[in-house]
Amino acid sequence: VEKSNIGEIDPAIKIKEMKTELPDADFLVCFGGDGTILHAAKDASSFGVPIVGVNMGSVGFMAELEQGELLQLTRLISGEYSLENRMLLDVRVIREGRVIFRSTALNDAVITKGAVARVIDLQVYGDKILISNVFGDGVILATPTGSTAYSLSAGGPIVEPTAENIIMTPISAHTLQAKAMVLDKNRLIDIVVPKQSRKTAYLSVDGGKAFKLFSGDTVEVSRSRRCLCLVKLSDKSFYEMINHKLERRSRA
Amino acid sequence: VEKSNIGEIDPAIKIKEMKTELPDADFLVCFGGDGTILHAAKDASSFGVPIVGVNMGSVGFMAELEQGELLQLTRLISGEYSLENRMLLDVRVIREGRVIFRSTALNDAVITKGAVARVIDLQVYGDKILISNVFGDGVILATPTGSTAYSLSAGGPIVEPTAENIIMTPISAHTLQAKAMVLDKNRLIDIVVPKQSRKTAYLSVDGGKAFKLFSGDTVEVSRSRRCLCLVKLSDKSFYEMINHKLERRSRA
Amino acid sequence: VEKSNIGEIDPAIKIKEMKTELPDADFLVCFGGDGTILHAAKDASSFGVPIVGVNMGSVGFMAELEQGELLQLTRLISGEYSLENRMLLDVRVIREGRVIFRSTALNDAVITKGAVARVIDLQVYGDKILISNVFGDGVILATPTGSTAYSLSAGGPIVEPTAENIIMTPISAHTLQAKAMVLDKNRLIDIVVPKQSRKTAYLSVDGGKAFKLFSGDTVEVSRSRRCLCLVKLSDKSFYEMINHKLERRSRA
Amino acid sequence: VEKSNIGEIDPAIKIKEMKTELPDADFLVCFGGDGTILHAAKDASSFGVPIVGVNMGSVGFMAELEQGELLQLTRLISGEYSLENRMLLDVRVIREGRVIFRSTALNDAVITKGAVARVIDLQVYGDKILISNVFGDGVILATPTGSTAYSLSAGGPIVEPTAENIIMTPISAHTLQAKAMVLDKNRLIDIVVPKQSRKTAYLSVDGGKAFKLFSGDTVEVSRSRRCLCLVKLSDKSFYEMINHKLERRSRA
Repeated sequence: VEKSNIGEIDPAIKIKEMKTELPDADFLVCFGGDGTILHAAKDASSFGVPIVGVNMGSVGFMAELEQGELLQLTRLISGEYSLENRMLLDVRVIREGRVIFRSTALNDAVITKGAVARVIDLQVYGDKILISNVFGDGVILATPTGSTAYSLSAGGPIVEPTAENIIMTPISAHTLQAKAMVLDKNRLIDIVVPKQSRKTAYLSVDGGKAFKLFSGDTVEVSRSRRCLCLVKLSDKSFYEMINHKLERRSRA
Repeated sequence: VEKSNIGEIDPAIKIKEMKTELPDADFLVCFGGDGTILHAAKDASSFGVPIVGVNMGSVGFMAELEQGELLQLTRLISGEYSLENRMLLDVRVIREGRVIFRSTALNDAVITKGAVARVIDLQVYGDKILISNVFGDGVILATPTGSTAYSLSAGGPIVEPTAENIIMTPISAHTLQAKAMVLDKNRLIDIVVPKQSRKTAYLSVDGGKAFKLFSGDTVEVSRSRRCLCLVKLSDKSFYEMINHKLERRSRA
Repeated sequence: VEKSNIGEIDPAIKIKEMKTELPDADFLVCFGGDGTILHAAKDASSFGVPIVGVNMGSVGFMAELEQGELLQLTRLISGEYSLENRMLLDVRVIREGRVIFRSTALNDAVITKGAVARVIDLQVYGDKILISNVFGDGVILATPTGSTAYSLSAGGPIVEPTAENIIMTPISAHTLQAKAMVLDKNRLIDIVVPKQSRKTAYLSVDGGKAFKLFSGDTVEVSRSRRCLCLVKLSDKSFYEMINHKLERRSRA
Repeated sequence: VEKSNIGEIDPAIKIKEMKTELPDADFLVCFGGDGTILHAAKDASSFGVPIVGVNMGSVGFMAELEQGELLQLTRLISGEYSLENRMLLDVRVIREGRVIFRSTALNDAVITKGAVARVIDLQVYGDKILISNVFGDGVILATPTGSTAYSLSAGGPIVEPTAENIIMTPISAHTLQAKAMVLDKNRLIDIVVPKQSRKTAYLSVDGGKAFKLFSGDTVEVSRSRRCLCLVKLSDKSFYEMINHKLERRSRA
């Protein structure tokens, strides 16, 4: 069990490294905003440990429980819960034939222009066939989980988690027909920064630290064999949750 | 082989009823616009006969060949083709517990308000759980094939055919968060015209004749066990075709 | 002063016809939803009488006060109010050279296909120059006041009331570049139902009774010389009001 | 007369500094893409010299003529042209009470997050009243001329040049109701980088070099007293041009 923002701790409680505890854990209960839960979720997925998120942030698409609902954690013991698998994306950067960066996305892999550049030109391929030339601010490759995050802000559709798709959403594209596209889960996506491009691009996985891309680089995105296991405690449906969160989001 | 718009016909050619011919046919070659191909496609799907569409209309999302490409039909004989399955939707109207209308959609089932009404209120359920209250002009339930038809005009996303999703797209919804939603292919969708509604609604399957709905009626939409088998002759990818068609559509 | 939904009335109060009272009235206080206020507003505008709307409905873009804020009406006597002019649109239908229908719009004039038709083709002209061929469900011509009503649902922008523009918003247009267009307030708009069209279209002004249009008919829309005078009692800005209402609208 | 990309020049032609020539010029004929024409246009506007743009780029919203239409320049001599004024925006950055940056926008002033940041929080005021909290990638303040540039890519509406509005378009906003807003031309817009923000933001005027903003900075945007004078040679309407350009843009 991980805790954050702890004021004072009973010395009887021994705090151990999460990586030491995880292999034998039944569940990981994570208190935090979407970022914290996202981060912990990936660690948990390495060990196949189901995770329960408790929302301490403002929106909390990732969280199963709100702060006032902690009593529901007793359901973990009584067995009144179900498990839900969420798709993950493997993200790799290939430069001159070698993999130079590797990460896993629960929400999205975002490739954007730098703050100073006016526009970037990216080629997006599906199984080596050209899907689209994206000429604009960039492109988002999202999981269904990530479809309600940045992809939604950029105009992408909501995709329910069990649907298992890869969502390709252009960001402020110049061509009006460059619309969001919902792809087959088995597609291998390549995003290529064109060779003749003088511009640098940036890759960010799940909103993390930006990785600098150069012309000629390829970002490979495909469904991961691993997936994230979420504990469902409440009877709230995905739709109920999404409508509730969107409502809160519209007030934010 | 079906033909439409025939000027003059060699009397040696015997024209038979399509239903007589279809059971023993290897392929159905259909000349026409999207509407004609759509119609023939459903007949073909009853007998599991693959169909080749030749575009005689202006846009032609359904067609494999353009008028100038008829020579490619010889590939049917040489075996240089592949087959692609397209998902179909079963559509049923239930009134007072009885099925009173039944149809199959290749593109979409559209439920709208009448021309005179200002707005309609519809409840959309997935596996009996409320997805959304659509308060607006109506709602579209589309297959991936239909995602590039009316659903796209109403703001829905493009979904590639092999992705196998059901797409729910509200039409001019009053609530800003009523966005297009991409659903699991196994979802059973119910669209309910509320009991207290004094308004009539209309159901149209694949743009066909409108069926009048009354308050209390439920439209059930689910993936059909049958699917449509399209012949792929060219090496054009779905993306290439979609980009080309959207370009033509933006000029229309 | 007009009242609606009155339970029981003191016989000492004499209720007169609104048209008898209006010429000598200082203000018209109207209790109701957007529809009621809209209707009364047009009567008031004929006599140049400023109107105060009290919202009895669910959303209430037209209302200045909510039900719980009636005490603020005393400001009418103390003079603590300002007046705000809202643009109106003159709407005329021309058939074979003759004006056969005439109305005034505070929100919008909407031209749509019938419930049964699949699509309609309309030509929109500005000062006799073609603006756009709208191929879809129809087109909305809105005032800034109406920009937050149906036009917003169909994807149009929010235009602040003092901006004085005519907004042209296509409804579910097939061509992706058929976007909402914000026009000069002095533009004379003609919407033409093409001569060769076999379809009927419908005109509805401010959501009122549909007027049937035939092929060859022209709907003329231009800024009215009259305008509607709204009483502003609160210090709420347009932006504050719009954000608040949109928030409620997203919860509706 | 300015030329760019000149291969070889007759030595008899004396090339002078544009600033020397402009005060006495009748017209400025500018060959180039949108960027070049934009740049020259601002120089011309300082001296009230009308400008004719000849498109050498791929899209060319700013250009009056295409490369093949140079003969139409003779109309400048025969007087067969009209003049069209385009609104400009004054852009100022205020830090600790002092103006530290000043520029003029023909298209837009864009305030965005850095490439590395995930999101930025900006407050947008109109005449010192809060219009909107934009929580997302940034915000665009555009003229009608700029409404068909970046603002359109970010989802903003097309505003015709004579309409004279200021358009506020959020970029990938998290709140779904943060929609594009068309404002009165006389509005004074303030965009504030919140004091408590640890993030830097960037201002770019007409796609030019990014100016770094710190927390507490205010970007002031208002209608310029100057305007840009464009020469209209052809009878092409704005609508015709916009539809043609959008079509090309959809193919780009």
